[in-house]
Amino acid sequence: MMLKQYVNPGEQRKAQLVQRPRMEAAELADLITTIFHRVQSGGDEAIKEYTTQFDGVDIAELQVTSEEIEQAALHLDDELRRAIDVAYANIMAFHQSQINIPRKVETTEGVECWQESRPIERVGLYIPGGSAPLFSTVLMLGVPARVAGCDQVVLTTPPQQDGSVHPAIIYAAQRCGIDVIIKAGGAQAIAGLVFGTTSIPPVYKIYGPGNQYVMAAKLKAMDYGVAMDLPAGPSEVLVYADASSHPEFVAADLLSQAEHGPDSQVVLVTPDHHILEGVENQLRLQLTELPRRDIAERALAHGYAVVFEDVERSFDFINEYAPEHFIILSDNAEDYLPLVRNAGSVFVGHLTPESAGDYASGTNHTLPTAAYARSYSGVSLDSFIKKITFQKISTAGIQKLGDTIMTMARHEQLQGHAQAVKVRIDYLKTQGANEDA
Amino acid sequence: MMLKQYVNPGEQRKAQLVQRPRMEAAELADLITTIFHRVQSGGDEAIKEYTTQFDGVDIAELQVTSEEIEQAALHLDDELRRAIDVAYANIMAFHQSQINIPRKVETTEGVECWQESRPIERVGLYIPGGSAPLFSTVLMLGVPARVAGCDQVVLTTPPQQDGSVHPAIIYAAQRCGIDVIIKAGGAQAIAGLVFGTTSIPPVYKIYGPGNQYVMAAKLKAMDYGVAMDLPAGPSEVLVYADASSHPEFVAADLLSQAEHGPDSQVVLVTPDHHILEGVENQLRLQLTELPRRDIAERALAHGYAVVFEDVERSFDFINEYAPEHFIILSDNAEDYLPLVRNAGSVFVGHLTPESAGDYASGTNHTLPTAAYARSYSGVSLDSFIKKITFQKISTAGIQKLGDTIMTMARHEQLQGHAQAVKVRIDYLKTQGANEDA
Repeated sequence: MMLKQYVNPGEQRKAQLVQRPRMEAAELADLITTIFHRVQSGGDEAIKEYTTQFDGVDIAELQVTSEEIEQAALHLDDELRRAIDVAYANIMAFHQSQINIPRKVETTEGVECWQESRPIERVGLYIPGGSAPLFSTVLMLGVPARVAGCDQVVLTTPPQQDGSVHPAIIYAAQRCGIDVIIKAGGAQAIAGLVFGTTSIPPVYKIYGPGNQYVMAAKLKAMDYGVAMDLPAGPSEVLVYADASSHPEFVAADLLSQAEHGPDSQVVLVTPDHHILEGVENQLRLQLTELPRRDIAERALAHGYAVVFEDVERSFDFINEYAPEHFIILSDNAEDYLPLVRNAGSVFVGHLTPESAGDYASGTNHTLPTAAYARSYSGVSLDSFIKKITFQKISTAGIQKLGDTIMTMARHEQLQGHAQAVKVRIDYLKTQGANEDA
Repeated sequence: MMLKQYVNPGEQRKAQLVQRPRMEAAELADLITTIFHRVQSGGDEAIKEYTTQFDGVDIAELQVTSEEIEQAALHLDDELRRAIDVAYANIMAFHQSQINIPRKVETTEGVECWQESRPIERVGLYIPGGSAPLFSTVLMLGVPARVAGCDQVVLTTPPQQDGSVHPAIIYAAQRCGIDVIIKAGGAQAIAGLVFGTTSIPPVYKIYGPGNQYVMAAKLKAMDYGVAMDLPAGPSEVLVYADASSHPEFVAADLLSQAEHGPDSQVVLVTPDHHILEGVENQLRLQLTELPRRDIAERALAHGYAVVFEDVERSFDFINEYAPEHFIILSDNAEDYLPLVRNAGSVFVGHLTPESAGDYASGTNHTLPTAAYARSYSGVSLDSFIKKITFQKISTAGIQKLGDTIMTMARHEQLQGHAQAVKVRIDYLKTQGANEDA
């Protein structure tokens, strides 16, 4: 069997199945602290030294130059440019739809309350390096930053072996209006965003995926008052499939997650054990054609399929698991949406693969892993704004609400709080203001 | 002088002035780890032992009984009950106004994307003990939890010296529909919410203010996958006042913050140095009548007033400071709102004291301190929900968007991602589906 199978697991087994690998940030703490201190005192030079040491690349200037940016467009594959443009437009449309129109509420006569959104002024976007350029993540972070109207957007990514940044990264960044691109990766890049250097403007919040060093550095950044998007672990998919599902779609969706990395989490939930054989056959068949077959096999080795008696029990487990990506492969997919309580992003129906959301449907692909979908949303416009509350009280308002405030303040033994109301009411009396003002 | 004064401070001085006291969570790490381990293995009994040790109170049962809840209503001051009811209604009205109506977006023909809100199913509310019952914080956390529709709301608060919970806390909790009230405080209460015990249901997210032990425990909870509302430091007010302001209002607002605790942050910003003398006189005068005078004086000792040349420079400083509470005492208050970029909650105009928002205007009083208003919002309905993204793709949709997805996937060297699209397009070809389907 490609996937271990569990039929109607009991409570204890279910509790085991929803476990994810624990992060080991604590073990890296000393190294991260050293890197932070060296970047804080050494700035650009310290980051360049770490880039030589960790990435094996000597960098003359950390910032990508305007010439490099111009060149990038010339070296980009035309088909890829068009694809990025389509994805950009879809991601833009969806994140623009998240703009909120503030509503004023008069909670008491003369007491108006409302929220207004403001962009986070300075943000840092981390784009990992690795075997391929993750231009899709540039769009996923750069577009909502643009919709929010962040003043200063800094993108940082490890240089390629020739010291350059891949044209697709540069093009996607340009598309999002990002003009500061830094050639640095790892904890040293995060430290640069926290403290600022000659080349790197400091930021208030840091976004983006990364390996364990980057994650540990983002947690460390919080000690310096710099916020982060999400705690992140290995990527996950949970596929719900039933008798109406197509085994080749089920297998392809499981494999598209499995190829991410050997630690990818791959889970199949079904109320119908008859589908498993067909899925197994398709997994075997499709694996033979997969370039990243070795990686996928290692991920599948700790993946599993669970069979439940009915739809309801299946969804109880799914909500307990709280998957990052949740694909519903069923004729009844839409009927099941009210049952979804915990998930990052949901893919509804046979023709909606996860890869659509990874790249181009318009939804964000930066999502909560490791069961954080129980309490966290994925990245959205909200991640790049603050909602500030406002209140404005009129003469009538303070006269009507004053007693309530003063009573509560006195019972919390905060007489000064009551006094702040009383000086105003006393003043109004001297002015002869009446309650109908 | 009650307040140190700075006139047109330079960049370096401004950088000093916006500094806040650093949290010392790291120093408590060993103690917190010990408490967590003991509560994880010892459950209720471990929490009771800590309650004896730290609070000096022996508790027979951690959960408040239904009899205690019934009794509470009988022992509550009538005036206070009415005040809580008014505040409840206002807080409810404002947080209900934050409910979002999801909008579906068709980003490409046949590609629908939308967000849906879901409550965080299990939440824990921490209400500190101390000299007075903080029933207002019960409303500020309990009301949005109720609006969100959280299934399991657990309130935990240190018992009073007689082993009871104050009737005002119980009444406010009842008002919010909270039926599990736990007599426990400190890091042991937070550990109970993380692991669950016989008396305490485990939760996914923990909210509420607290001392350094509670804050360190909330940070520790994140290691176990339990989220928290906000990093919290000492409370703050920044008052902007100009020639149109009333010195007695300015002084009263500064004092209402100063009386919170000796570490409270109290700042006055003005473009007009002429107002300072009047404010100083009022501070002296009003202090004499303040029961918590000693505390307020200690807070004022590290507070300050800053004079800037003009409104613009004043607001640049205010945004850099990013105050938790920001009061604008000026005839022109509303004109200045577009200048506010970083703040927790804003009090607009002469008749809007901070204490209105602390208790009853309807806005939330759980707000970002320590300059976190640069990147964090205060607690709101959003804090109790997740926004899950959904996408549904039709035959036409996958045919139109398929090439874009496959091109991007191949350039990120994720062939399996492309394959998940290709199996669907191949299937549709065998079915003779055409592009207009």
